[in-house]
Amino acid sequence: MWHAFRHHLRSAAAAAAIALAFAGVARADDKPAGKVEISGGQVNELQKIASERGLNVDDLVAAAKTYTPSGKHDEFITFASGGHSGQMFVIGVPSMRLLRSIAVFTPEPWQGWGYGVGNKVLAEGDLDKDHKLTWGDTHHPALSESNGEYDGQFLFISDKANARVAVIDLRDFETKQILKNPIALSDHGGVFVTPNSDYIIEGGQYPMPLGNKYAPIEQFKKTYRGWVTLWKFDRAKGRIDKDQSFAIELPPYDQDLFDAGKLASDGLIFGNSFNVEAAYGAIEKGEAPLEAAASQRDMDYMHVVDWRKAEALVKAGKTEQINGFKVLRLDTAVKEGALWFIPEPKSPHGVDVTPDGEFVIVSGKLDPHVTIYSTAKIKQVIASGKFASKDEYGVPVLNFDDVKEAQVEVGLGPLHTQFDDKGYAYTSLFLDSAICRWSLGGSFAKLHPEKPWTVVAKAPMQYNIGHLVCAEGDTTKPAGHYMIGMNKWSVDRFFQTGPLLPQNFQLVDIAQGGEKMPVIYDLPIGVGEPHYAQMIKADKLKPLATYEVGTDPLTMSVDPKAPMPGDEKVVKEADGKIHVYTTVVRSHFTPENVEVEEGDTVVWHLNNLEQTPDATHGFCIAGFNINLSLEPGEAETIEFKADRAGTYPFYCTEFCSALHLEMMGYFQVKPKATASR
Amino acid sequence: MWHAFRHHLRSAAAAAAIALAFAGVARADDKPAGKVEISGGQVNELQKIASERGLNVDDLVAAAKTYTPSGKHDEFITFASGGHSGQMFVIGVPSMRLLRSIAVFTPEPWQGWGYGVGNKVLAEGDLDKDHKLTWGDTHHPALSESNGEYDGQFLFISDKANARVAVIDLRDFETKQILKNPIALSDHGGVFVTPNSDYIIEGGQYPMPLGNKYAPIEQFKKTYRGWVTLWKFDRAKGRIDKDQSFAIELPPYDQDLFDAGKLASDGLIFGNSFNVEAAYGAIEKGEAPLEAAASQRDMDYMHVVDWRKAEALVKAGKTEQINGFKVLRLDTAVKEGALWFIPEPKSPHGVDVTPDGEFVIVSGKLDPHVTIYSTAKIKQVIASGKFASKDEYGVPVLNFDDVKEAQVEVGLGPLHTQFDDKGYAYTSLFLDSAICRWSLGGSFAKLHPEKPWTVVAKAPMQYNIGHLVCAEGDTTKPAGHYMIGMNKWSVDRFFQTGPLLPQNFQLVDIAQGGEKMPVIYDLPIGVGEPHYAQMIKADKLKPLATYEVGTDPLTMSVDPKAPMPGDEKVVKEADGKIHVYTTVVRSHFTPENVEVEEGDTVVWHLNNLEQTPDATHGFCIAGFNINLSLEPGEAETIEFKADRAGTYPFYCTEFCSALHLEMMGYFQVKPKATASR
Repeated sequence: MWHAFRHHLRSAAAAAAIALAFAGVARADDKPAGKVEISGGQVNELQKIASERGLNVDDLVAAAKTYTPSGKHDEFITFASGGHSGQMFVIGVPSMRLLRSIAVFTPEPWQGWGYGVGNKVLAEGDLDKDHKLTWGDTHHPALSESNGEYDGQFLFISDKANARVAVIDLRDFETKQILKNPIALSDHGGVFVTPNSDYIIEGGQYPMPLGNKYAPIEQFKKTYRGWVTLWKFDRAKGRIDKDQSFAIELPPYDQDLFDAGKLASDGLIFGNSFNVEAAYGAIEKGEAPLEAAASQRDMDYMHVVDWRKAEALVKAGKTEQINGFKVLRLDTAVKEGALWFIPEPKSPHGVDVTPDGEFVIVSGKLDPHVTIYSTAKIKQVIASGKFASKDEYGVPVLNFDDVKEAQVEVGLGPLHTQFDDKGYAYTSLFLDSAICRWSLGGSFAKLHPEKPWTVVAKAPMQYNIGHLVCAEGDTTKPAGHYMIGMNKWSVDRFFQTGPLLPQNFQLVDIAQGGEKMPVIYDLPIGVGEPHYAQMIKADKLKPLATYEVGTDPLTMSVDPKAPMPGDEKVVKEADGKIHVYTTVVRSHFTPENVEVEEGDTVVWHLNNLEQTPDATHGFCIAGFNINLSLEPGEAETIEFKADRAGTYPFYCTEFCSALHLEMMGYFQVKPKATASR
Repeated sequence: MWHAFRHHLRSAAAAAAIALAFAGVARADDKPAGKVEISGGQVNELQKIASERGLNVDDLVAAAKTYTPSGKHDEFITFASGGHSGQMFVIGVPSMRLLRSIAVFTPEPWQGWGYGVGNKVLAEGDLDKDHKLTWGDTHHPALSESNGEYDGQFLFISDKANARVAVIDLRDFETKQILKNPIALSDHGGVFVTPNSDYIIEGGQYPMPLGNKYAPIEQFKKTYRGWVTLWKFDRAKGRIDKDQSFAIELPPYDQDLFDAGKLASDGLIFGNSFNVEAAYGAIEKGEAPLEAAASQRDMDYMHVVDWRKAEALVKAGKTEQINGFKVLRLDTAVKEGALWFIPEPKSPHGVDVTPDGEFVIVSGKLDPHVTIYSTAKIKQVIASGKFASKDEYGVPVLNFDDVKEAQVEVGLGPLHTQFDDKGYAYTSLFLDSAICRWSLGGSFAKLHPEKPWTVVAKAPMQYNIGHLVCAEGDTTKPAGHYMIGMNKWSVDRFFQTGPLLPQNFQLVDIAQGGEKMPVIYDLPIGVGEPHYAQMIKADKLKPLATYEVGTDPLTMSVDPKAPMPGDEKVVKEADGKIHVYTTVVRSHFTPENVEVEEGDTVVWHLNNLEQTPDATHGFCIAGFNINLSLEPGEAETIEFKADRAGTYPFYCTEFCSALHLEMMGYFQVKPKATASR
């Protein structure tokens, strides 16, 4: 009977699915291959719709530039951090649609992340075994690079709230590794890669006694320290190699963003700092709060690190261990010639290397200029050994005028700078709520008609732009065309969703150059607060549609314990635990009824046998905080204690078929007293 | 000094903010008031863009119908469930932008939910004090209604994975209450309201021994039971009154969706069931799995409940207590005349009452028809007492032909039905991957030119549509114009984001009636799996932009412990705990340094003094899993144990101002041995 029924059901469903697959794809193929012509009647229709909806012709043009019909794919993919959501977001450009979130530091049950899937990865990032960390604050992601270009293989992100770094594999968009930084409790949530992703650079932010110790705040200058960590990335394994990683101790200034040199400046790392006053807030004592105390001086310090030199020092054993992690001490870094400072105006935020590596752009958020430094001059001065002074921690300070190439007055509150393919730079202006396009000099001067180092255009942003991202705009080969302003406030832009409002990503068409850079789309981000993002050409990404059946995503290989058809059983194994072997396919689990005894430890092995793309199944057990997302071919193993008697339904949490509601079973926990196993 | 600096900073920022506010709003006012005219040159530009991007003229028309420029607000707001994300999503229509998520059952740090904010609400929903529940599976939300129309005040949702219900206040879009159903461990994740929201109806799904007990699966028919719970809603308090709520025991069939009668059928509740075979899967014994075993019979049973009668029985004390909760036993409900069954074909999913209350539409997912029942006939047969039979649990079964009004052959796998303002019904077809528009009879026949009860049009969906939602399409006054198909699979519609793909919400323009119903937008949902949604006119919602300073969102009143300026302090209070009183304003916390002793219990009171819309501040403490989202005026109190010595930065997790990085302080935990407090 069952076989006949199954045959009937499958053939009906299969026929429908096949018919649809072609019907669906057909639409995309329907598109006219050549020139589109809009008839007079169609113009009238467009005019009528626009009039009724209060659109103007610019809006229609913007709509045509962004609207992406069913089945047509986006040209670029943006990976945006999720701020204090702890996750990453994947956004298509130009459609500006949030395609999915990637769970990283925060448990997220739709993906099963932390509810059975990913628990090992999350546990790796805990503070210690008694102190789990259940969220993160992600700021600045970095795509892996080869020769300074995005290669589409990996994505890295860190957690400002707890000083952790994560590795995401872009084959399946899943987080594969989370590491706790052993020397600090908070970073800047930002990672940056060297041009071939040899190292992932995690900058510190708030100075702390290294190694997570207590020290009275009055000992700030003496005991607190800044730092930068260089995590060695093993591309073949797709993992950070902690044993080959190290931190560099820095003075107790607030480190901020970093950027790796490339091409002309390969081998150097540039990092901002603010609060070279080494102030700590003391408003409770009637003194100025940190926001003022940290903003006294006109200049802060850009950090310049020779990372190959630092690496050699580490290999030569010139480090100390803090909590089992290699730390290159400040005095060693200075003495051995691996660290220098350059004055930079005032409370800088962005530090961005130009695509050719010839220049570093710094924006002081309390200074209306961007300052352009020549990396050739920096190298020259370092080689000459002619420094202006030393800071109070002994770090050599270069003379500002020796290395400055130019300054451009861009406006109030400049933060970050990105680049296009036409020789322009784009700087976000927080206080002006605007973006500024200005012309680059050097090798870029031939790409545009304007005088180098001049402001070309400004466009308002709604409101309070933080970062901005251009297509491949921080690589050696920017792609141009699109820029996203990542605005922190949306105020009146969208329907008021209560007192908590979304951020506002504004897509800007930068294809035309010159004065034109219209905003063509407003995307509310109401699931987190992205800080920075990177935008990659979609065709560089080679994602999997399905796993080979039985694949454990953590190892990306077939798990020998993954149950195949015929392996389904419930058995007590040598470890004294009850092992359940379950296969998963539309629309049933096998077995459907599982009985254990109260107090048993249950190890449940599940394998989604599907090989149809999008044939994801869920697996939840009522009342047990368990929910897996089993993508096609995925196998997972979970372990938990059946700590109370009862009758617990389990079911597929994905609407996987017409009979998805029937895809369920019962997990029975028999009371101990009456058990007869 | 500080005052001078602050003055400088504030005036610059304020001037910029004011300038911007007007600049920003101005754009929206720029819109042409009258008719839009597209010049020949502009037509050429549109043609050029369309040709380059592979769009056709239909795409341009769809773009014009959906594109919503910066500052222009959506006409409708859709509240979609989030499936196994455990949350709710707010989506603007026609722009189809995800405006924000609302954290409900799953901790979510961007909103602070479960990381300091909302912890009390979440704890209310725990299984017991030893078993926290950390996620949910939300399926069918319900907006509060007055006279059968959405009133925009509250939103209700339940958790299929754990049988819980939640109340969201639409003044601030925050979850105010979560209640665990005491008699069951899983429901259908769906809630439905009576026409004035007197009761929130939570239907069961998988039969269980009531009260969360163990019973061998072989006792299924004897011991397992279905149920429906009627939660009494106290609108003035904005809370469910558990003491006035009750459940009705039902036979061990799988209850599914419910709908409340309205107008002509006010006082009745209609609820589907499938698996009247009372089968349980036993594939592990070589028998048919549940998907087949539960699909043997041609008819299942629609449940009809007289809820006013049931309420009277409860008030008369005719209930039993299970886990302290009132349960109206099945035999009492039958004997007293509160429950009847009506045969319905085959494995029904949707049960939907027409806007006038005259008809109930049922879709059997293994039957190509929708079946239309007359509520007048149902009432008449019930009054006459002339039943066809009784089911094996004694429930009177009405004769199908006595109450059937019509059947319409709509296609394969019909699931759910919604209504527009033109007398049409829309049914989702899962296996056909399509929507079917068909004409209603009765009082609706005069609204359309077609013969009643006939198919008018079909449109393909990509792919596998589950629910569908029309604007106010399940109320007494559907608004028409827009329909969203909530498709479970997207397959090839979007860029492949690894093996886990988003759902696909397709917006359909249903304004024209007749055969035309074009898909005008595809929205990927990659943050959860919505099942059902409701779409409300935006102007019915009256959200707050800010709270009065010091407001606790849980009580919506000013917390007397909320620190106002001048109240800031760190003090050991009579309860032996260290109380910290902190005010929060751009861009500092007061105090900035807080020292306690290892082992202290810390009670931290924070108050965001801001009254500027969107001036949200965060508050996180590194390493402590604490992150608050403090919206303008919001006050929160958190309590935790300082269980380890160290120096822990705290900071504002929102990018709130140009000096947001400086909005931080240190939480010092002094080692016990050296403490000198």
